[in-house]
Amino acid sequence: MAKGLKIAVIGGGSSYTPEIVEGFIKHYEELPIRELWLVDIEQGKRKLDIVGELAKRMVVKSGLPIDVRLTLDRREAIDGADFVSTQMRVGLLEARKWDERIPNLHGIIGQETTGPGGMMKALRTIPVLLDICKDIEELAPNAWLLNFTNPAGMVTEAIARHSKVKSIGLCNAPIGLHKWLTKKYEVEAKRIYTEFVGLNHLHWVTRIEIEGEDKLTELLDKREEYSGKNVPATEWDPEFLRTLGGFPSYYLKYFYMQDAMLEDQLASLKANGTRAEVVKRVEDELFELYKDPDLQEKPKQLEQRGGAYYSEAAVNLMVSLRNDRRDIQTLNVANGRVLDFLPEDAAIEVNCVVTGQGPLPLPVTKVPEQAKGLIAAVKTYERLTIEAAITGNRGIALQAMAAHPLVPSVRVAKILLDEMLEKNKPYLPRFFK
Amino acid sequence: MAKGLKIAVIGGGSSYTPEIVEGFIKHYEELPIRELWLVDIEQGKRKLDIVGELAKRMVVKSGLPIDVRLTLDRREAIDGADFVSTQMRVGLLEARKWDERIPNLHGIIGQETTGPGGMMKALRTIPVLLDICKDIEELAPNAWLLNFTNPAGMVTEAIARHSKVKSIGLCNAPIGLHKWLTKKYEVEAKRIYTEFVGLNHLHWVTRIEIEGEDKLTELLDKREEYSGKNVPATEWDPEFLRTLGGFPSYYLKYFYMQDAMLEDQLASLKANGTRAEVVKRVEDELFELYKDPDLQEKPKQLEQRGGAYYSEAAVNLMVSLRNDRRDIQTLNVANGRVLDFLPEDAAIEVNCVVTGQGPLPLPVTKVPEQAKGLIAAVKTYERLTIEAAITGNRGIALQAMAAHPLVPSVRVAKILLDEMLEKNKPYLPRFFK
Amino acid sequence: MAKGLKIAVIGGGSSYTPEIVEGFIKHYEELPIRELWLVDIEQGKRKLDIVGELAKRMVVKSGLPIDVRLTLDRREAIDGADFVSTQMRVGLLEARKWDERIPNLHGIIGQETTGPGGMMKALRTIPVLLDICKDIEELAPNAWLLNFTNPAGMVTEAIARHSKVKSIGLCNAPIGLHKWLTKKYEVEAKRIYTEFVGLNHLHWVTRIEIEGEDKLTELLDKREEYSGKNVPATEWDPEFLRTLGGFPSYYLKYFYMQDAMLEDQLASLKANGTRAEVVKRVEDELFELYKDPDLQEKPKQLEQRGGAYYSEAAVNLMVSLRNDRRDIQTLNVANGRVLDFLPEDAAIEVNCVVTGQGPLPLPVTKVPEQAKGLIAAVKTYERLTIEAAITGNRGIALQAMAAHPLVPSVRVAKILLDEMLEKNKPYLPRFFK
Amino acid sequence: MAKGLKIAVIGGGSSYTPEIVEGFIKHYEELPIRELWLVDIEQGKRKLDIVGELAKRMVVKSGLPIDVRLTLDRREAIDGADFVSTQMRVGLLEARKWDERIPNLHGIIGQETTGPGGMMKALRTIPVLLDICKDIEELAPNAWLLNFTNPAGMVTEAIARHSKVKSIGLCNAPIGLHKWLTKKYEVEAKRIYTEFVGLNHLHWVTRIEIEGEDKLTELLDKREEYSGKNVPATEWDPEFLRTLGGFPSYYLKYFYMQDAMLEDQLASLKANGTRAEVVKRVEDELFELYKDPDLQEKPKQLEQRGGAYYSEAAVNLMVSLRNDRRDIQTLNVANGRVLDFLPEDAAIEVNCVVTGQGPLPLPVTKVPEQAKGLIAAVKTYERLTIEAAITGNRGIALQAMAAHPLVPSVRVAKILLDEMLEKNKPYLPRFFK
Ligand SMILES: [Mn+2]
Ligand SMILES: [Mn+2]
Ligand SMILES: [Mn+2]
Ligand SMILES: [Mn+2]
Repeated sequence: MAKGLKIAVIGGGSSYTPEIVEGFIKHYEELPIRELWLVDIEQGKRKLDIVGELAKRMVVKSGLPIDVRLTLDRREAIDGADFVSTQMRVGLLEARKWDERIPNLHGIIGQETTGPGGMMKALRTIPVLLDICKDIEELAPNAWLLNFTNPAGMVTEAIARHSKVKSIGLCNAPIGLHKWLTKKYEVEAKRIYTEFVGLNHLHWVTRIEIEGEDKLTELLDKREEYSGKNVPATEWDPEFLRTLGGFPSYYLKYFYMQDAMLEDQLASLKANGTRAEVVKRVEDELFELYKDPDLQEKPKQLEQRGGAYYSEAAVNLMVSLRNDRRDIQTLNVANGRVLDFLPEDAAIEVNCVVTGQGPLPLPVTKVPEQAKGLIAAVKTYERLTIEAAITGNRGIALQAMAAHPLVPSVRVAKILLDEMLEKNKPYLPRFFK
Repeated sequence: MAKGLKIAVIGGGSSYTPEIVEGFIKHYEELPIRELWLVDIEQGKRKLDIVGELAKRMVVKSGLPIDVRLTLDRREAIDGADFVSTQMRVGLLEARKWDERIPNLHGIIGQETTGPGGMMKALRTIPVLLDICKDIEELAPNAWLLNFTNPAGMVTEAIARHSKVKSIGLCNAPIGLHKWLTKKYEVEAKRIYTEFVGLNHLHWVTRIEIEGEDKLTELLDKREEYSGKNVPATEWDPEFLRTLGGFPSYYLKYFYMQDAMLEDQLASLKANGTRAEVVKRVEDELFELYKDPDLQEKPKQLEQRGGAYYSEAAVNLMVSLRNDRRDIQTLNVANGRVLDFLPEDAAIEVNCVVTGQGPLPLPVTKVPEQAKGLIAAVKTYERLTIEAAITGNRGIALQAMAAHPLVPSVRVAKILLDEMLEKNKPYLPRFFK
Repeated sequence: MAKGLKIAVIGGGSSYTPEIVEGFIKHYEELPIRELWLVDIEQGKRKLDIVGELAKRMVVKSGLPIDVRLTLDRREAIDGADFVSTQMRVGLLEARKWDERIPNLHGIIGQETTGPGGMMKALRTIPVLLDICKDIEELAPNAWLLNFTNPAGMVTEAIARHSKVKSIGLCNAPIGLHKWLTKKYEVEAKRIYTEFVGLNHLHWVTRIEIEGEDKLTELLDKREEYSGKNVPATEWDPEFLRTLGGFPSYYLKYFYMQDAMLEDQLASLKANGTRAEVVKRVEDELFELYKDPDLQEKPKQLEQRGGAYYSEAAVNLMVSLRNDRRDIQTLNVANGRVLDFLPEDAAIEVNCVVTGQGPLPLPVTKVPEQAKGLIAAVKTYERLTIEAAITGNRGIALQAMAAHPLVPSVRVAKILLDEMLEKNKPYLPRFFK
Repeated sequence: MAKGLKIAVIGGGSSYTPEIVEGFIKHYEELPIRELWLVDIEQGKRKLDIVGELAKRMVVKSGLPIDVRLTLDRREAIDGADFVSTQMRVGLLEARKWDERIPNLHGIIGQETTGPGGMMKALRTIPVLLDICKDIEELAPNAWLLNFTNPAGMVTEAIARHSKVKSIGLCNAPIGLHKWLTKKYEVEAKRIYTEFVGLNHLHWVTRIEIEGEDKLTELLDKREEYSGKNVPATEWDPEFLRTLGGFPSYYLKYFYMQDAMLEDQLASLKANGTRAEVVKRVEDELFELYKDPDLQEKPKQLEQRGGAYYSEAAVNLMVSLRNDRRDIQTLNVANGRVLDFLPEDAAIEVNCVVTGQGPLPLPVTKVPEQAKGLIAAVKTYERLTIEAAITGNRGIALQAMAAHPLVPSVRVAKILLDEMLEKNKPYLPRFFK
């Protein structure tokens, strides 16, 4: 321990990297990092160099003895690591563009994680992550893998079922909600108690208490909204919200407000192109900023990017794992016996006590009846998608697509699948053998 | 036993009655009926008289000592009965018309059992059935209640959870499939082995074997189709079918071929009105036939009506219950521990061994992964609907409607619900207190 | 099918063989056997020759075209078999003698299946059976293995968990109870309905109905007793029996009447030696009879031996499997979801519907609260014993012995284990590496 | 909150009271008590007065504004309470004497909680506790009931299943183990991580880690022993301990070392009488001390009494409940889905996160196979005992006694039960109607 930790960030050339570097600097005391390895692939070398140099400048400014290393050799970075974190995008924003655009062209929600396009993201990503896991099994068997790579729920489940790596899936939505509550009620974070039920990007918050007092009812009554920047605000039906039994994730609008969300997407597509294209422009601007040799800190503009608190979530988790802190965090882990209507090996997003030996999921005290059907339906889609990703079987992929609640028929499933597989050919060798 | 059985048929004025009377006559030896009570409500008296007189003529012709009684006094009919069978339609075909028409007007599948209109049918029917159950608890606590009243799955679950009556839900679809296989393969029924998984009007047949040999694969490969008369045939995607893992109930087309089915319905609505209106005309013709005082048997035309083998299913079940026959029948019963992703008290449609003490559900040996999500989603809708039926709570009803997989958004759910509740006002006193 | 079945009986030199041969002759029509292979080991050749020649004379007398083959080559017998049946005794009656005697010498129940001595039988037998299963996997992967080899519950569970062979465990106790009821109530077997709950040699009969009428209550009230010949009758406490909620297997006396049974055993040991020694004398006499070249049928004296109806149980099962008969038989199979307090892969003894694809366990409708603790305690002992058999780990064996409900302390467990392992050295190579 | 808490201690005349009063004084800041009510029954008035006056003197010395009230009116004490704590002994030490002595006289372990005598304690206590719960339901429905009354597991389960009171069962054994580890390893309590599996007085500690490092293995290897004062130390078999998979509660010696423990008890009985009689003498001496009007603090001698850390356990729990502290404590709560082999409503002793809304049980990460059988067997005994306590049914009581793992036969069960019921007649009106 004395010698400090080794951390490998896979996808280290991401525009998010300054955020996590800032987090590491801030929490150096509880998480004394000796080596921080930023890894990327050949194709991402340019971005890795830019953001990596910024990271080095940030560390220099901090005065901390953290050794920042940039590499294209994943195995070197993983070797002996204490924590491996992944934040990759197989196929880059170009692939995402089609995940969003193709469904839209057929009158279907285009969303890169929960929409049917998310299936392509899973098919591209899962095999790559499982390859990384093989390296971790071999080179850093005791490491914790923190997976931010979306679709984080499916990726986490694929890893849990198909590798021996100790892994945890992470999303910034739960911590984001906490931050929002903290500001709204002007209260310390630890005074707030929330209970999450569901899957990644498909959760309901079934308890919100401040100093033991229920706030959920008033939040639902007033139709208060916590929304990520990447999802437009739309009005909820008040009666529906009041009887739902949980504060819905903003991603649930894609299901509950399918028609309004689609309309909004189509208008936005016309005006600005896909979300991928918008993000691409933001990223390009960020990298322009990062190049500035005088910049020694995370630029304010990064906060526009959509991944707020991502760094805080990651650092919180590492600190608790390392220090056996036993605090409650909302994570993506194997269901175990928490939800009685899902298999034990299904990944869910749930409150966990983070011990030194890993997270222990807490029992849920309330599950909205309404939520069960949707959770089960999406989980069915997810499990079939994972199977398709591993086998490269088109029939299974079709079953998965047809099982997606936003896909109205097998006919449409077939069309979407065929077009999207074709577009993803370079990333899906298993489907084109 | 020596003195024979008492049977009460609630909704005895139904056009189906000659079918079941024929069944009773045919199986008199195994099911020696002393008294057959046909019960109906004031509103149905005319039909009861017509069909009741036909029933009497049929019995006279058979020469059997069965005493046929017509009554509007339900309690008299139930008192001391061995079997009570229900085949009712609260609100008659007029109410059904709106269950089908209102969704269609909003571009949604209109189907009286599995469509969102089925929710109204459940709301109208469940309280009436639970009232009947109170009479059975009091007057015939040992009777078996055979429930044919649709939506049979929800009605059966409501009874199982909210009364002490021993009840079983029945549908003619499973026996119909058997008959179809019998003819197709020219083989005795008992040589065929099938395994059903799912809910009423939402099942997959996961094993079809003839003398131990698998036939499911070829049936799926060839896209063979067994279809009830009330559902138009449409092409299945061959790849989808081949990888589905089960022979789908024809009701599943409403989910898997939502777009084609809707198109077909809208065309049909334009040409012939709703299915309710078509059925109404068929029924009127049947009753004209029934009036003929020379008619002493079930007229051939009844087979056009859509309830084929209904009588055979009912009589089969009564015979096995009475004689502890221990054969396998596909019935709607409480899940118990059969499907691990549903509550123990959820009604499912499953193979059962019918013993003298009631049906024992058999474990399922295969559950298509694809089916799980849809089963769970529909069951969530069903459970919320049952809760709404019992409480008269509009918020719960809205949750139910929004949970229906054929309803694309809360906005549409609200519209459908409001219009349909209004139209059903006379039958839904709990919602208009 | 036309060409008839091949059956391999492993342990074919057993004194029981004439019983099963008689069964095959009687049921030839439903079970047309072409080849009947009797297999034994070198050590059993003399007995195999004697009983094998008798089997041949029985078949000749029957006039049926069954080809009886005697062999010491197990693989030849298994190759392409439709059914494999095992009735072995690793270590012969000599080993059994010590299974009974050593516990008795320490004041503990000596019983070859349910007593702590049964653990040695399991340790000797499980590896041999798993070897046989490897041959079946290779040479007859579609064969059904019918396992009569005791301790049948543990052996069946070991096979189910550690091989791919389709196997079923069998005991004559359930069929024996049926026969007893048939005689007692002078009623056809199919009029009787019984429900069994528990494990092999540890079951409770929770429903006994004749033509739908409860007989369990009167049987318990009158302390009626069905007892195998190898267990002495002893008085049950009437209040205990009345409130127990099930008719106890006579093997349960070893637990419920531990003191009286032990006293009886010690007296009997003094007078006649162990049960093994008594059986040895009976067997020697049987083989003397079998030698008679004029004997062409099963001698009456075999019925004294203790395995009554064993043949009937085996033939019943084979007939139902071959003909998809779907009748109810009480068998040892994997628990699945039948008993919610045991693992899914635990072998239990339970009513099954025997289909052409194998037995399907029926749900239990009543489980005596009292029974649960004992079932769970014995199952824990069984699972640890299976683990010990496979690993040869003495620590696990000690855990198993200490978990046996008839062993009062770890100290005694250690003594029994050490003495018995030593005595079984030739049969337990895994423990003496 | 500002006005402070009201606490009712039922059985306030107990010799333990100074201990809990000391705790309240020490933790006043986190647990600001306004009123502390000590309640007892008429029979205990003398003791209540003595210990109550001491309590008052202790509070006066502390200078805190806590109002100590002594009363025989339970309802007055409960009315509006925030916490109710129970530490009663129905029948006093006199009844305990027979719980220990009668089994001993028949050669059976005499132990007031886990032995068969504990059944009498449960029969005497459960109805009284359920009466108290009725008062709490009426007068303090939001109160938390902290139950220390033994047998704490059964009492807690009875309350959870038969009342609506929010209750938690407590024992000082888990905290005692922690304290022992703290001293042994000279480390802060929060650096130690332990995981408990089992029931009250029947647990295994399956993980013991200090700063993330495993210590369980060495503790088992070295046969280190943490033992309560009331249980004599005896040697464990080293091989048994090493392969057991958990550090056993010292109460487990009654099962694992039944023979040695019985021998010890019989010797001790001869020398000093029962443990009850020894305790009686200790208590008499304590009350002599308490009478001293100059005594203003808990006397050192109380620590000899056996209930060490009892106060700390209680105060810890109250503090966490009141302040939503979310720390991990080992408590007796409903199983929920923690142990898959026990019913959801069975009380277990397990790690919980204590939130402001109550404890949430943590999943167990390891369950020794060996432990499962014994846990299930004891739980069966417990559930039957609870049913007997509520119904007063002798048949059920006999089933319970016969199910106790320390009772070797139904015959012995009957003898123990008859003698003990007779001796407890005054406290068991339900059994003598
Ligand atoms: Mn996310
Ligand atoms: Mn139907
Ligand atoms: Mn047997
Ligand atoms: Mn205790």
